[in-house]
Amino acid sequence: MTPVAGHWPHRHLLDVAELRADELERIMRLAGEMAAALRARTRRKDLAGRRLVTVFSEPSTRTRLSFEMAARALGAEVSHLDPPVSSIVKGESLVDTVRTLAALGADLLVIRHRRGGAPHLAARHFPGHVVNAGDGCHAHPTQALLDLYTLRQLLPRGCRGARVTILGDILHSRVARSNVWSLTAAGARVTLCGPAEWLPDVDAWLGPHASGRPIRVTTDVATALAGADAIMTLRIQRERLSQAGPSQALSSGAGPSSPEYALRYGLTAERLAMARPDVVVMHPGPVNEGVEITRQVATGPHSVILDQVANGVPVRMAVLGLLAGSDGASSASLAIAQPPATIPG
Amino acid sequence: MTPVAGHWPHRHLLDVAELRADELERIMRLAGEMAAALRARTRRKDLAGRRLVTVFSEPSTRTRLSFEMAARALGAEVSHLDPPVSSIVKGESLVDTVRTLAALGADLLVIRHRRGGAPHLAARHFPGHVVNAGDGCHAHPTQALLDLYTLRQLLPRGCRGARVTILGDILHSRVARSNVWSLTAAGARVTLCGPAEWLPDVDAWLGPHASGRPIRVTTDVATALAGADAIMTLRIQRERLSQAGPSQALSSGAGPSSPEYALRYGLTAERLAMARPDVVVMHPGPVNEGVEITRQVATGPHSVILDQVANGVPVRMAVLGLLAGSDGASSASLAIAQPPATIPG
Amino acid sequence: MTPVAGHWPHRHLLDVAELRADELERIMRLAGEMAAALRARTRRKDLAGRRLVTVFSEPSTRTRLSFEMAARALGAEVSHLDPPVSSIVKGESLVDTVRTLAALGADLLVIRHRRGGAPHLAARHFPGHVVNAGDGCHAHPTQALLDLYTLRQLLPRGCRGARVTILGDILHSRVARSNVWSLTAAGARVTLCGPAEWLPDVDAWLGPHASGRPIRVTTDVATALAGADAIMTLRIQRERLSQAGPSQALSSGAGPSSPEYALRYGLTAERLAMARPDVVVMHPGPVNEGVEITRQVATGPHSVILDQVANGVPVRMAVLGLLAGSDGASSASLAIAQPPATIPG
Repeated sequence: MTPVAGHWPHRHLLDVAELRADELERIMRLAGEMAAALRARTRRKDLAGRRLVTVFSEPSTRTRLSFEMAARALGAEVSHLDPPVSSIVKGESLVDTVRTLAALGADLLVIRHRRGGAPHLAARHFPGHVVNAGDGCHAHPTQALLDLYTLRQLLPRGCRGARVTILGDILHSRVARSNVWSLTAAGARVTLCGPAEWLPDVDAWLGPHASGRPIRVTTDVATALAGADAIMTLRIQRERLSQAGPSQALSSGAGPSSPEYALRYGLTAERLAMARPDVVVMHPGPVNEGVEITRQVATGPHSVILDQVANGVPVRMAVLGLLAGSDGASSASLAIAQPPATIPG
Repeated sequence: MTPVAGHWPHRHLLDVAELRADELERIMRLAGEMAAALRARTRRKDLAGRRLVTVFSEPSTRTRLSFEMAARALGAEVSHLDPPVSSIVKGESLVDTVRTLAALGADLLVIRHRRGGAPHLAARHFPGHVVNAGDGCHAHPTQALLDLYTLRQLLPRGCRGARVTILGDILHSRVARSNVWSLTAAGARVTLCGPAEWLPDVDAWLGPHASGRPIRVTTDVATALAGADAIMTLRIQRERLSQAGPSQALSSGAGPSSPEYALRYGLTAERLAMARPDVVVMHPGPVNEGVEITRQVATGPHSVILDQVANGVPVRMAVLGLLAGSDGASSASLAIAQPPATIPG
Repeated sequence: MTPVAGHWPHRHLLDVAELRADELERIMRLAGEMAAALRARTRRKDLAGRRLVTVFSEPSTRTRLSFEMAARALGAEVSHLDPPVSSIVKGESLVDTVRTLAALGADLLVIRHRRGGAPHLAARHFPGHVVNAGDGCHAHPTQALLDLYTLRQLLPRGCRGARVTILGDILHSRVARSNVWSLTAAGARVTLCGPAEWLPDVDAWLGPHASGRPIRVTTDVATALAGADAIMTLRIQRERLSQAGPSQALSSGAGPSSPEYALRYGLTAERLAMARPDVVVMHPGPVNEGVEITRQVATGPHSVILDQVANGVPVRMAVLGLLAGSDGASSASLAIAQPPATIPG
């Protein structure tokens, strides 16, 4: 086991948009090492003695458990702050919660929040490290990173030049928004497809830094799927539709009903045949079977949905390990080899 | 500390009905070793590096904590997936949850579910080990095992030939159903007693493999208690009455009200006097005092209710230890002694 | 690291009223050592192999997490029993829960309960150690201890002779009631201030043992703040007002509304100026900003609210360490130094 080497320039992980291509590459490589450690059941110590607290204001099976397992595999102590047992009931604000957790000795926070920007607010008031585990319609950086890792692993010709189609309610999807950044940074060409009401004005949605990236927008599913190397289906987030979006890009229309969406855009075996024969099908989970994707496709040979889940653990280990080593108070010393024992003879 | 020795032929523990008498005996002996380790506060490593997740769709104090403590005492990492914080809110199905947990790296699942058969369904989709922690009206194998352990420990003449009376809503009780299998396998004679609406057609309830086992059914409490070595009272499960039972054996009648049941079948000091003078009184907990048993009897000298709770931890340790060693990828090597240190002189 | 030395005469921590001045002093000194261990990230083993269970029937962010972090920093295994996932749903009583936890092998219980006296009841039925984490309007001993630690640390002239003003709904505050005991034991002079409906008859509130302690009661905020070295503001506990108080001292009046209280007693910058220029401002959290204290004051230079939170962890470590060493079955041997290695030459 080697400690995480070298300086990592970011104290937090709030958005993939802040990561350069070489930094994405570094996370990918480290995630590969973490995956090897998991397979070998090697216990790492990158976060030994560190306290990580998950703060989730929305329910989540896989993301919370994935972070918990990643943190423990690095030796951290994990505590959970779930809304029902927290002072959120008493009206305590996020900033107060974050300051309280810092005072209690938390070193890392993993925050999921229904309001976009909440983790950024938390980061401004937390002396340790904050990881955004999904905020409103804004960003879900570790999902985008594990999706990138999965595509690098499974696309026969790699990500550079690959055609990735994201299908669904793009406008309200933090998964789509984060993936557009990381996929284009890795050289992929992205097509965003869905009903007009759910498609963003890309410039307004991503901001000026995204200009020039190979992003295509279409309402026509046949156009979107033709020649695709990967199709990323999105969960239809009924609960998100009533909220304000991340920017003025928000359309006012509510979009189609679930059955109507399924009929027009749901990924069926027939539509899947429009893509490349070796196309890879993704979904961030949990799946609404029969809405955005049929059960047949979700569990069929093209689906890599469980690969995505499995890759979440080593990718999150890589992120946590880099962050913990980012502030100069690196945990590398914890992983130092024992000095050779010189036995007096 | 000795590692769990020998091959265990079952990958899961879904039902006690699948266990032979010699396998029950082996669990009992290993539970005795586990109890000794607990008393000595010895840390075992049978599950070191293994990840166990509890998935409980019904609330439970003692069972969930008992498994948590058992798993940690063997060195496992324990995570909980409680319905309020899980994707069950989002409509994720049990099969998807199980596949997700497998992808996340869970090695063992402990499942409680309100639907009979749910753990069997889970086991078909999980590459690791599944333990049924109670499914609907069907089975509760670790409860039956800890009850057997308690009776072996406390019955002065042992289980062989002992008269054990199970009193209450037999038909809807997974505790009763599992105990009938293990008690008769261990040589006990079982009497099932309760209102007619709550008594099963034994052949339909247990299936053809149970034929010939010494099982007596009666609505008369005096008959049931006369000469009993042990009385197992059951919780009146109001919440279970509205559900479908495990088989067509289900009666359609709802049975008596709680006060009426207490009057006719509640275990009072007077009724207790009908049994042997050294009779042992059990209850799987939590007790509805004054319904199935009076407080006086539940906390009196014949009660072994807290022994049952205490025995749950070593019995579950035994089960988990055997399962973890069952697949060839035994954890025994983790418990290997350090090689003798040869110091160059 | 030195183990906790010497005999501690109390098996439980239920109330600060039971602690002598020299015992308070001992907790303070040990908390200082614990704080040093936390800063150095030294892992202590005072509770290695011990199982602590938190039983909270009221929500709490900071108190539960603070105990969890304290217990883990001493090497304990921590489990939570939260009402939503516990048998409280099934009507199991506190005494049954406590007996069940004892049978499961819990060594220490940390109990928060909405009923005053509940931890005392629990202690009578638990063979291990019980820590009261707040019971109704009665007591919150670890809060009082961390407040004392904070004042000793931050008051330039120490606690002896210091003027401490407690401001708010005194009558219903377990924080106020516990602080009055510990502050006066440490030599401070205490002023209790609030609306008449919320002020206690001190003799009835504290009992005969408190007679002669320097406690002043006033409804006049200017009188209360003049010359104060420390101001302890209290959360206005709307949820507590509907409950029975700890004694017959309870007034029948409901007191002012929140806005009216804020107007008459809320700690504003103007009122703060009535106290000493170096006055210290405290609050047990979570704060109702704009009611008992303004945001400006709560986050201003006089506020030590986050120091209180931070001090909670080492103070609770000290309490848990002393209790664990109190019964003769001390954990000191766990912390014993390795014997010097004599290498055959």
